[in-house]
Order: sequence, then C-alpha cells, then structure tokens
Amino acid sequence: MNKTDLVNLIHKKQSFLCVGLDTDINLIPKHLLKHADPVFEFNKAIIDATHDLAIGYKPNLAFYESMGLKGWESLEKTMKYLEQFKDSIFTIADAKRGDIGNTSKMYAKTFFEQLNFDSVTVAPYMGEDSVTPFLEYKNKWVILLGLTSNKGSSDFQFLETGEGKLYEQVIKKAQQWASPEQLMFVIGATHPEEFKNIRALAPDYFFLVPGVGAQGGDMEKICQNGMNSECGLIINSARQIIYASKGEDFAEAARANALAVQSEMTKYLTALSA
Amino acid sequence: MNKTDLVNLIHKKQSFLCVGLDTDINLIPKHLLKHADPVFEFNKAIIDATHDLAIGYKPNLAFYESMGLKGWESLEKTMKYLEQFKDSIFTIADAKRGDIGNTSKMYAKTFFEQLNFDSVTVAPYMGEDSVTPFLEYKNKWVILLGLTSNKGSSDFQFLETGEGKLYEQVIKKAQQWASPEQLMFVIGATHPEEFKNIRALAPDYFFLVPGVGAQGGDMEKICQNGMNSECGLIINSARQIIYASKGEDFAEAARANALAVQSEMTKYLTALSA
Repeated sequence: MNKTDLVNLIHKKQSFLCVGLDTDINLIPKHLLKHADPVFEFNKAIIDATHDLAIGYKPNLAFYESMGLKGWESLEKTMKYLEQFKDSIFTIADAKRGDIGNTSKMYAKTFFEQLNFDSVTVAPYMGEDSVTPFLEYKNKWVILLGLTSNKGSSDFQFLETGEGKLYEQVIKKAQQWASPEQLMFVIGATHPEEFKNIRALAPDYFFLVPGVGAQGGDMEKICQNGMNSECGLIINSARQIIYASKGEDFAEAARANALAVQSEMTKYLTALSA
Repeated sequence: MNKTDLVNLIHKKQSFLCVGLDTDINLIPKHLLKHADPVFEFNKAIIDATHDLAIGYKPNLAFYESMGLKGWESLEKTMKYLEQFKDSIFTIADAKRGDIGNTSKMYAKTFFEQLNFDSVTVAPYMGEDSVTPFLEYKNKWVILLGLTSNKGSSDFQFLETGEGKLYEQVIKKAQQWASPEQLMFVIGATHPEEFKNIRALAPDYFFLVPGVGAQGGDMEKICQNGMNSECGLIINSARQIIYASKGEDFAEAARANALAVQSEMTKYLTALSA
C-alpha cells in the first residue's frame, strides 16, 4: 500500500486506528479453546468485528513465536485471512528487527514475501545498512523506532548527543535513508509533550503511535501536537480493544471499544479539514 | 549453562569458537536438497563435524523465519538435535529482539522455553525493561548489542553523549541490570582497536565477537586486546566455516576450517595461562 492509498483510507474510514493483535492464548475467552487454532479463531472474530472501523492490524510477533510452530501457523492464517481486505487494511509486523545487511535482507523476505505484510517495525541501533534491505520492496514500509512508549525509553533515547537527543538524531538521520513514502517512525503515546517537536523534525512522515489505552497515552494531546495535514498518525490500541471482554461477547465488546475510539478520531479528522 | 561451566568448557576444548548457523537453502550443497528437510540435514552434518572443536552454535533466526513454517521446524529440529550436547555446547539465538516488558517476556518464553536456547541477542535501544524479562531465567543469558560489526555501527553507536560514546554508555548502564553471570555484550570483530577500551569498561563480562572471517575481523588483535583471565571471548564464524565447500565434502571442509581456527585459539589460551 502506498502513502496516497493510506491517506485516502484514513479519510474514507474516518479512522486512523490500528488494532494490535497481541493475541495471548491465556487471555482469550475460554470457549475458543475448543477450536483447533484458538488464536486464529480469536483474530478472525476480532477482524470481522472491527475491519470497517480500523485502518490496520498489527500482529505482535513475540506472541506468535512464543507458541512455536503452532503460533507461526496462526500468524500465517491470520495474514491469509487479511488478504481479502488488502485494499482497505494496512498490515504491520511488529517485530522490532534489525541486523547486518545480509540478515536484514532475510527478515525483509520473511515479512514482505513469506507473510506479505505492508510494513515492519525496525530497531535503529545498527544503523543504515540494517534498515536499507527493507526499503528495496516497492510499496512496503519500514517503521523505525524513534521514541518508544516504555519506561526504558529514558535509558538511551533521551541522551544528549551534541546535536539533540538520540531519538532526535535517529529521526533526522533516517530521513536521509528513505522518504515519507516508505518510512514511518514509532513514537510512543506516553510522551505527548514531545509530539510537537517531533512533528517539526519530520513534518511529512507518518508516526505509528502505540501506548494509547493500557499504557496510558492521551489521544487528544497527541492529535493536537502530532497530526499533519494528511493526518500523519496511526494510533495503535491492543489490549483495550481485543480484551474488552473475556466472555462470549468479546467480539461485540471489541467493536464497541473500537467504535468509541473511531468516533473520537472522526472529531480530530473533521477539525483537520475544517 | 552458567559462567563457570562455560569457562571450563573453553579451557577443556581449548576453543572459544562459536559456529554461526546462518543456513541458507540457496547456499547449501545441492545434493542435500533431496532430503525432506535440507536445512536440518545441513545443520546436523555441520554439528557432527565440528562439535568437538566449537563451544557453541548460533542459529541466525532470520534465515529460518524467511522460510516460514518449514524454517521454524528446521530450527526446532536443530535445537532438539543439540540437546545431546547440552553440557558441552552453548547455544545462542541470534535474534536481536527487544520490546516493551510484556512483549520481551514473550520473546524470552520463545527462546528459553520453546526452543531451549542458553542465550539470546538483544538490542538495547528500548532500555532496561526491554532486557530484564530475559534475566528472569536462571542460567540463561542476554547478549546485548554493544558495538556491532557492520558499517551502520557508525551511524549512532559512536555518537558522543557527554559521558562517552553511545555504545560505551550502553555497556556501562547494562552492567547495572545484570552481572557477568547472565549478561554478555556483542562486540564486532571489525573494531579491533576498540577492544582494549571496551575490556576496561567491562572487565569480567564475556563478549560475543561476530565478524571474524567473511566480515574481515582480525583475531590476533582481538585476542590481544579483548581477552580477560578467563578468556572472556566467544568468537563467531559462520560463512567461513559452514560454506567452506559447496560440494559433497562440505562437512569435512567445515571441520578443516574449524580446526584451523581452534588451533589458533589454543595459542591464545596457552599464552593466557602462561
């Protein structure tokens, strides 16, 4: 999916919500456990209930890998199921990969060829040649860690480097590697006060924003400080939506929570075009 | 495996060689392709031919994931095969993972429970809570990226932070999180001149050193500058050993190259105890 299509999708659906598929077999409703592949059944129900309200899904690779072969199979089935929505859903492999060139090339193959994701999250520590192999795929995206939502973001990302903080250096330097047509940044919702500064550093790039919901980020402030004229934000919510209910009504409850978020997003998108 | 066992192993085998299992189905000898699982057959033959000369194996996750389900199966079979050597071989999941706490916990489960590795490589960008979930497993190790072997290591790792370069800060700070009994650092062989300084920063920690061989690192200089009284180094070689020959003699050729490296290592270990 290219940037024009993504922007059109956001305005058509009046949503910039991405649903995080952090599917944990220990947290899904018990009645699903009778199925051969409970994780896939759960994802399928969540997708069926929310695909008109969300513009993307973000499976978190760790949750699938922790189940070994069975987990990888659930992920493959989820991605196959999402193919029917390929023009209306943007898919994100939340994998935080990054390695030397010949290895990043293999990860690119994994996520863009094997699993057919639109994008993958990448860690910046190893620099340019750990990122560029992902950029060789047309209409596929790198979503580079900029400023993350967790407590540990303060350990290194805020270090002063002489030319700004480390995360600012990452955001500046990476723009030399890729245009806003192929690169986004992860900017955690738990730092709403930083969004104005980050938007100024990267005016035309999309930001993937995790940490709204369970991690406590403030959506209104993020939208005020972080939107650009195209929207420029994809806000991810996982636990707040997929685990809205632990009962048989989990999919309806997920839809209700997704609808509440999407309705709020409509306000911000309307203000944007006003 | 704990540190005492690892050190004993190194002195007993007179080796600190780790063989990188970066197994690429397009690069292995053609005659293996008739097997149901050529990647596993290749790994098995390499292990059989080198396990007395090496103290560890390091499967590179990207190579397995790029083959999807089949690749994951080859990896599981390789790890099961290595179980017979559990007291004489240290296993490293070269995965470069790292995410928010609840997600790193899932990766720890993947590598330490599902696949039963002794250690996993972790990227430092997300800070302490992305690392600590891996430390909850007794006798399992985090191998944190310090200074990597690739060209892109110059993009961020050498940034001056006011208290030394970024990679120095990573090495200093991470020592507050874990002792040398559970933490090692990745230090690329392509920076032999930095080893003296890094050894001074972390006197008692093991370093995993990739980049000898195909990437051009200089083993003699690294040993001179980087060893400590226990050895303190695990040197990884992948392509130079596993692809020593593309013919039916690939395992013998791998053994010959591993033997050459191990013989050189014996010299450095002898000098150490002299």
